[in-house]
Amino acid sequence: MTHVFDEAITVAALPDGVFRATTHSAYDNMVGPFGGITAATVVNALQHHPDVLGQPLSLTLNYVAPVASGTWDLHTTIVRTNRTNQHWTFTIEQEGATVSTGSAVFGIHRETWADTEAQRPQVPAPEAVAAVDFPEFIAWARNYDKRFVAGSLEAKSDDSTSTVWLRDLPERPLDYPALTSMTDAFFPRVFLRHGTYMPAGTITLTTYFHATPDELAAQGTDHVLGTARGARFGNGHFDQYAQIWGGDTLLATTTQLVYFKDPQG
Amino acid sequence: MTHVFDEAITVAALPDGVFRATTHSAYDNMVGPFGGITAATVVNALQHHPDVLGQPLSLTLNYVAPVASGTWDLHTTIVRTNRTNQHWTFTIEQEGATVSTGSAVFGIHRETWADTEAQRPQVPAPEAVAAVDFPEFIAWARNYDKRFVAGSLEAKSDDSTSTVWLRDLPERPLDYPALTSMTDAFFPRVFLRHGTYMPAGTITLTTYFHATPDELAAQGTDHVLGTARGARFGNGHFDQYAQIWGGDTLLATTTQLVYFKDPQG
Repeated sequence: MTHVFDEAITVAALPDGVFRATTHSAYDNMVGPFGGITAATVVNALQHHPDVLGQPLSLTLNYVAPVASGTWDLHTTIVRTNRTNQHWTFTIEQEGATVSTGSAVFGIHRETWADTEAQRPQVPAPEAVAAVDFPEFIAWARNYDKRFVAGSLEAKSDDSTSTVWLRDLPERPLDYPALTSMTDAFFPRVFLRHGTYMPAGTITLTTYFHATPDELAAQGTDHVLGTARGARFGNGHFDQYAQIWGGDTLLATTTQLVYFKDPQG
Repeated sequence: MTHVFDEAITVAALPDGVFRATTHSAYDNMVGPFGGITAATVVNALQHHPDVLGQPLSLTLNYVAPVASGTWDLHTTIVRTNRTNQHWTFTIEQEGATVSTGSAVFGIHRETWADTEAQRPQVPAPEAVAAVDFPEFIAWARNYDKRFVAGSLEAKSDDSTSTVWLRDLPERPLDYPALTSMTDAFFPRVFLRHGTYMPAGTITLTTYFHATPDELAAQGTDHVLGTARGARFGNGHFDQYAQIWGGDTLLATTTQLVYFKDPQG
């Protein structure tokens, strides 16, 4: 039986580096598809390109216009393949309009000096934290087991930090597309600051993939720990920065710029 | 008399959204031009496009291949202009090859609820900190007054944090191009961890501009305070995340993925 996530990120390869995808209602957001599933589908497509080099190192996805339900075409270009990395650009086209643009870097993992400076938040194990549901109208969130250690949106907070155990529901071994999707699984930080939903949407998302294939394999279907926070809010926008941990391994760092509108504005 | 920074970011508008720039030896790096000056030139060009909407909100620049000394052409595309923001893509072409790709979002600042959660490092005033020089072979750094509060590369450190007062030298009022350049003015964090220079280069840079035009005007020629740190190093790459402050105003947040090679590797 195919996992719903794999259904959602399925692409068909067309000629000339084009991949056709179809939105999946299981990953709908309030308006259009969840941005994380779009990003995951892009990564899945690039990984399936016959000329791909190595694994994802970075992804930037710009959400230009709403994606409508139905099919969309990803137009990919390999700009240059260097010895250890490969630069991509892409657009997402739907009914003659560009709805997303972006770029990616893939590359080879080489053995080098290594250290992780970031500190994983010290939190109770996932089994010790209650899973919560999001409201019914956020369809995509039903595909994640979410256990908030902090910032669960149950109360307005002066601190926009959310720290949350996340896992695909049903369980699914972690891979680059799944990790990609999770880097957008933090709801807009203004919701937490205001204790309520409000009009908001990601404008641009950038994710750096630190995880190697072996680290993803070791992660299996265990919960990852995500922690996200905004730095500055104002003038209609804010940023948020997040880390995703698998055990003591920093799997990904990610940042996004988000549009928002005051509830009364 | 024209400031050397303005000389360096000068562009000539050609037809069809193309801008021609020329590298400036005053902003050379160890290999090719300083990435910050390339990014600043892109922002300067986009700001001069007749159809630009508002101010820079975000910029992603992918360093695909080395930029050679001489002219380069920036090919810009306005993908879509929404009510409050505008999405751009661009490439930098030099002698028939694409040496950079990227995307930008420009937009309007609207009055909304606002708060800054990030905390500015508490540090002595710039006047109380000694200015330092970088080695002669890092030409671009001579155009900045640099006063390190932490992480000056004078000693190897287990903490990759640099906190530094920065100002154009000679003084120049802060604007979006200058701010852009400063978001790449943090040397690769591996230098600090190893206490030495080593082969390293930015692969991709993303900057979010939080500053409004009024805030930039208020900043004038005062020093900005930058603070940068890496989260994870290994497998030939690392990330760094930085903030740039003007007084208590968070002007920009920025992140980059950097390639490096072990000195012995």
